Amino acid sequence: MNVIALAGGVGGAKLVHGLAALLSPEHFSVIVNTGDDFEYCGLKISPDLDTVCYTLAGLANPETGWGRRDETWTVFEVVKGLGGPAWFQLGDKDLATHLARTEWLNRGLSLSEITQKLCHRWGVEHLVLPMTDSPVETIVHTKAQGSLGFQHYFVEQACQPMVRGFAFEGATQAAPAPGALEKIRAADLVILTPSNPWVSIDPILAVPGYRDALVEKVVIGVSPLVGGKALKGPAAKMFSELGIEPCASSVAEHYGALLSGFVFDHQDSDELEKIQRWRIIPLLTNIIMKDVQDRVRLAREVLTFGESVSDRSQ
Amino acid sequence: MNVIALAGGVGGAKLVHGLAALLSPEHFSVIVNTGDDFEYCGLKISPDLDTVCYTLAGLANPETGWGRRDETWTVFEVVKGLGGPAWFQLGDKDLATHLARTEWLNRGLSLSEITQKLCHRWGVEHLVLPMTDSPVETIVHTKAQGSLGFQHYFVEQACQPMVRGFAFEGATQAAPAPGALEKIRAADLVILTPSNPWVSIDPILAVPGYRDALVEKVVIGVSPLVGGKALKGPAAKMFSELGIEPCASSVAEHYGALLSGFVFDHQDSDELEKIQRWRIIPLLTNIIMKDVQDRVRLAREVLTFGESVSDRSQ
Repeated sequence: MNVIALAGGVGGAKLVHGLAALLSPEHFSVIVNTGDDFEYCGLKISPDLDTVCYTLAGLANPETGWGRRDETWTVFEVVKGLGGPAWFQLGDKDLATHLARTEWLNRGLSLSEITQKLCHRWGVEHLVLPMTDSPVETIVHTKAQGSLGFQHYFVEQACQPMVRGFAFEGATQAAPAPGALEKIRAADLVILTPSNPWVSIDPILAVPGYRDALVEKVVIGVSPLVGGKALKGPAAKMFSELGIEPCASSVAEHYGALLSGFVFDHQDSDELEKIQRWRIIPLLTNIIMKDVQDRVRLAREVLTFGESVSDRSQ
Repeated sequence: MNVIALAGGVGGAKLVHGLAALLSPEHFSVIVNTGDDFEYCGLKISPDLDTVCYTLAGLANPETGWGRRDETWTVFEVVKGLGGPAWFQLGDKDLATHLARTEWLNRGLSLSEITQKLCHRWGVEHLVLPMTDSPVETIVHTKAQGSLGFQHYFVEQACQPMVRGFAFEGATQAAPAPGALEKIRAADLVILTPSNPWVSIDPILAVPGYRDALVEKVVIGVSPLVGGKALKGPAAKMFSELGIEPCASSVAEHYGALLSGFVFDHQDSDELEKIQRWRIIPLLTNIIMKDVQDRVRLAREVLTFGESVSDRSQ
């Protein structure tokens, strides 16, 4: 079975890790949100790409959900001492990634090419593709503070401002990364990983080509919400602030006709009927991934479920 | 006595350090070459400014002649492991300077403002001015490898390519940093420190305004060559490759009518007559600065000499 995952940061990366443990590099690839990408101190930073790659390489910091494990902080300690920018901290090893990426981008390599170079060095064999090689910027429209670049909303403002909506600047002029649409076309199953629908998956879908390619496919969504709460990040808060109940079925409704099946938590079993009413095939299971075993278990359940949904769709 | 020094990297920074030990911040400022400035991994690097500031702050690495003392190399070790750019190595503490500077430049601060911020943090009380806040790039025209950006010639190519000449791109559109010309106008003495005439002092003189301001002044040059050799760097090699004998008098001739006086080494006493013939007042002394005591001694001699030249000019 050929499988493609669409992913953002932590939650997505965990399921991707589980899927990569079960599927060979020939049969599994991942397309990652780059709407969060930003420039800081002149460095081009791709937080979701790094989280996915670090996770696959076993280099991710399990405590923070970003950056590298066994990290040191020499450089930013000195930056702080200089009164320099401090709203976003970068570890020493993580900095090396950004320095190499920035130099390679400045020399004309594409983000896809650079991601492959890095993955090769890190021993990541599965193909990790940025959603696009073009600049796309997720903008968070807020009630009190106007429009903020994603990282300013997410890190500098700690997700405090009330959200009114989102824009993905540059998306309509962007093209999917080379090979991404071909991978989707060759896929038997597409998984929308448990990442934030608003700011992790929607930016990918905003790049022309993806939505059309997905319409043809068996697409399984995995809820990032459990019991009305996000396991990490501001997804639940965003639903609420947009006037939508933060629950698993709201995620399913958000993706709508794109979904053939939807995986959500036992805790939310009262939403089963609603989801079925939308002709989305449900899978109730434990979707919380506390350790690597959980990631592989959930990945296996999603794949088995995907196969059965695929059989039913034919 | 109000004194201004024009400086490039190591040699200039040493004499500037000696002068700063003798003169109060009200009476001594330094204008530094920024033609060597370049962008690397997205970071804006100002090698000569940093060398001067680190030296004044007591933070300079005495072995390398660039970067900070007590340095660590965590980040670039990892960059190397990634197969990333390696022709220019940046230490961890030094990186912090470049990160802060780049972020501040990107936020719209000028290089002068940033240099003052950094100096304040480092406890440097004397005013250190970049020659300009505009981008100027020293280009080295070579025989075999065409035109190279200065750092590519200096670091990546280790000064190997034969030199045909130099250009200072952007210089004619650049303006002296705010306050620089006023400082020169108020100066009783201007010192061309023992930096490379071709690529450290000439870029400053190429910015419109400086040369005219200096014509009115008592200007003392200090030779960067001793016994036909540069104490550091490619100055002697450049003179030879341009068909000029690499000796103290060639430096004096290079600055020509700008000079009222010229300080050079006892070893080069056979050049005394030649220099006097050009109506440049000579001072023969020991110009090699091996330690801080040497810097202060030479600075004191240059100041005393400058006073006497000044008296004679009136």
